[in-house]
Amino acid sequence: MAAHMTPDEFRRAGYAVVDWIADYWSTLGERPVTSQDPPGAVAAALPPTPPERGEPVDAVLADLDALVTPGLTHWQHPGFFGYFPANTSGPSVLGDMVSSALGVQGMLWATGPACTELETVMLDWLAELMDLPRRFRSTGAGGGVIQDSASSATLVATLAALHRASKGRWRVDGLDRRYRAYTSTQGHSSIEKAARVAGLGAEGVRAVGVDPASQAMDPTALRAAIEADLAAGDVPAIVVATVGTTSTTAVDPLPEIGAICAEYGVWLHVDAAYAGAAAVCPELRWAHAGLERADSYCFDPHKWLLTGFDCDAFWVADRAELVEALTVMPEYLRNAASESGAVIDYRDWQVPLGRRFRALKLWFVLRWYGAEGLRAHIRSGVALADRFAARVAEDDRFELAAAHPFSLVCFRLVAGDEASAELLRRVNDTGRVHLTHTRVAGRYTLRLAVGSPSSTEAHVDEAWQLLSGAADELLAP
Amino acid sequence: MAAHMTPDEFRRAGYAVVDWIADYWSTLGERPVTSQDPPGAVAAALPPTPPERGEPVDAVLADLDALVTPGLTHWQHPGFFGYFPANTSGPSVLGDMVSSALGVQGMLWATGPACTELETVMLDWLAELMDLPRRFRSTGAGGGVIQDSASSATLVATLAALHRASKGRWRVDGLDRRYRAYTSTQGHSSIEKAARVAGLGAEGVRAVGVDPASQAMDPTALRAAIEADLAAGDVPAIVVATVGTTSTTAVDPLPEIGAICAEYGVWLHVDAAYAGAAAVCPELRWAHAGLERADSYCFDPHKWLLTGFDCDAFWVADRAELVEALTVMPEYLRNAASESGAVIDYRDWQVPLGRRFRALKLWFVLRWYGAEGLRAHIRSGVALADRFAARVAEDDRFELAAAHPFSLVCFRLVAGDEASAELLRRVNDTGRVHLTHTRVAGRYTLRLAVGSPSSTEAHVDEAWQLLSGAADELLAP
Repeated sequence: MAAHMTPDEFRRAGYAVVDWIADYWSTLGERPVTSQDPPGAVAAALPPTPPERGEPVDAVLADLDALVTPGLTHWQHPGFFGYFPANTSGPSVLGDMVSSALGVQGMLWATGPACTELETVMLDWLAELMDLPRRFRSTGAGGGVIQDSASSATLVATLAALHRASKGRWRVDGLDRRYRAYTSTQGHSSIEKAARVAGLGAEGVRAVGVDPASQAMDPTALRAAIEADLAAGDVPAIVVATVGTTSTTAVDPLPEIGAICAEYGVWLHVDAAYAGAAAVCPELRWAHAGLERADSYCFDPHKWLLTGFDCDAFWVADRAELVEALTVMPEYLRNAASESGAVIDYRDWQVPLGRRFRALKLWFVLRWYGAEGLRAHIRSGVALADRFAARVAEDDRFELAAAHPFSLVCFRLVAGDEASAELLRRVNDTGRVHLTHTRVAGRYTLRLAVGSPSSTEAHVDEAWQLLSGAADELLAP
Repeated sequence: MAAHMTPDEFRRAGYAVVDWIADYWSTLGERPVTSQDPPGAVAAALPPTPPERGEPVDAVLADLDALVTPGLTHWQHPGFFGYFPANTSGPSVLGDMVSSALGVQGMLWATGPACTELETVMLDWLAELMDLPRRFRSTGAGGGVIQDSASSATLVATLAALHRASKGRWRVDGLDRRYRAYTSTQGHSSIEKAARVAGLGAEGVRAVGVDPASQAMDPTALRAAIEADLAAGDVPAIVVATVGTTSTTAVDPLPEIGAICAEYGVWLHVDAAYAGAAAVCPELRWAHAGLERADSYCFDPHKWLLTGFDCDAFWVADRAELVEALTVMPEYLRNAASESGAVIDYRDWQVPLGRRFRALKLWFVLRWYGAEGLRAHIRSGVALADRFAARVAEDDRFELAAAHPFSLVCFRLVAGDEASAELLRRVNDTGRVHLTHTRVAGRYTLRLAVGSPSSTEAHVDEAWQLLSGAADELLAP
């Protein structure tokens, strides 16, 4: 009969897994970035039922190599330029290993005091590192928490906003009238999803127009949308502004948007999921101008700050308001520490009850890299994007589709949508790089997003050579 | 300047962390289960700002020992008997290490085909292992997915139920009338929270009465509540029945509840967060009788099935209905595989967009233990609970407060609430064990929940000796 793994068995198997990881990372650049297998290939290779008797770890690692890794999209690959980066790093994995082994469930301060307190301090460290407004620090009325993703941060902000907009009735009465959420046409799909989850429906989200050149929210259009809803008797509850939109990394004008939110008493949430990390560099903090008016803010260390998914950093200016919206206290969770009011119970800052010790990976990353290491990583990404954009700009067959203030470059073939889509297919089919697409003002646009610690000038240059070569073939008369 | 960690640096540091973990697990039984430090002690010991220059991993591990672990509640401790277990195991940690290192973001099939397919197969494996109704298998119209927690499973079920109850209008129009959710007075707090998140408010949740002896939902009271709401013009949307309530592991009568749900066309979600794992043993499957009427079901492998948090296994009978409720498809996520309709995109089965490769830890656990190893673990927990309950039953000063069909024993001093609360304080203050409390029919009740792979007869006997000894002191004339 299979028994529990002893600490010594774990030690031996753990070394083997560490070796497996080091080997995987060392050989990653030689693998195809994506799998070419058809849907169902991996499932078909697995037994339909679990084994009756236990098996050794070696057998699982062998199948990992034979069945699983060939069927993956390799997000840590130096040629992965799709979506936004979701990069991890050695220190992040080490921190996560400790977290997995401790197996702490930090729903309450009492169920993991150090889990809670390290998290509060790490979020204060990040706020310091990025020079976020003082109101978000835990030393005042605000504070930070780790959410699994920016989706969940937006949802939590939406719920707190509904509670405020209902004057505190939402918790008990639910949605008693029509509440409205606002974001730009370029806001992330998770904003609509959060509104849907909260019961507002797709109709409850106003897609505010953008400036055609910058793709940033038009504050005049925001004001008009709010006024129209007020005239209809609806209640404007939340504006979600974006620093670094998903399509093109456009930056909404926070000073103007913040002033409008203040005027109408609407909650302002700022979603900087990808681009927020840039604020570790003073020269990129312009993107956060006006943030002092926000009620909540988030960015994802799991995107561009070398901390493995999931790690969204979410701050509120008034933690009491958030907790009031979300708390439920059954008898079996009552404890002296919570009742003292002197502690943070992070279950009241999120939707799920349970939570892992995610602050550890952030702690390992911040200490391994130090502030200067993180700044160097961000600057490297910006420089690689600049380098790539310069190639695009020099080639008459291509055009840049948007500004590239961070590490995302949006570009396309002048020849049009079909040619651009075909170009993307051909380049991705090489297996050497992986790019994704979007539409900018209706036009099919390729996106190259840099973020991996293993991506170098050579990888970005290779991406350009593949694109340029494919364009040669595609556009040949 | 701190640079990225190389694979060889990771190899060396990884070995050190593996050693740290093996040592931690080896010495866990000697540590106090909980910290005695006051709130703020850990935070005060940490620097207020992040380091400017990077530091070696050794320095972080030293602080882990000096600052963090002394401030923890040790959930993996053999003397941890609080709440419900949230246990991990060696193979689970190994699987999580691989997941952290791969850093796959499995939001779409296309962004991690093997991530998606291994998850679908693992959920089918679990369904087979537990003999769940065929309708939940992915080979039919149903299928399973990993949620972070039972809280999120309940939320997702609530959303799908609202979509169904609104006849498909909820997605677009939001909540257009008053919808109602039903659970027993013993249902978990996450049910009220899910309803609140979904916009129903606390008023939207009907707390249905229970049979005083069994603490299980009274189907007659459920029918009456539904009828009353219908008479008031409200729409019954979802019933959440519980297999293994948090207070006492009561099992709601699924056959009767399922018949009522079918009669009124109400979504039935079954929350078996803790007790569901017992179904790996045929002799404990009685608790799932009637489950074939459920629209959705969940249990937590991260509670009693040796898989580290977070891993809630959630199934639906009709996956198309769930996806229709939750999908949003922006241009930047469009891809050929999704449009073919031949693949599962798990982002549409959950609230957040992003997701980790959590099926790996489940795969490692199911293969290391095999079905027989998992059955042995569950049986060991039941036997330890029986052993402890026998001690309680033999002592006239104590009484059992509820049946103990699984691995939770509810008990109290006959002398009353104050004595029982004081007994809990004294026993927990020893640092050797950690128990929590609840109220059963208004009376203060202690809970001893077994689940750790390291808990043995000796640990349960020690818990009893501590309780019995403290009772001697407390009840001395």
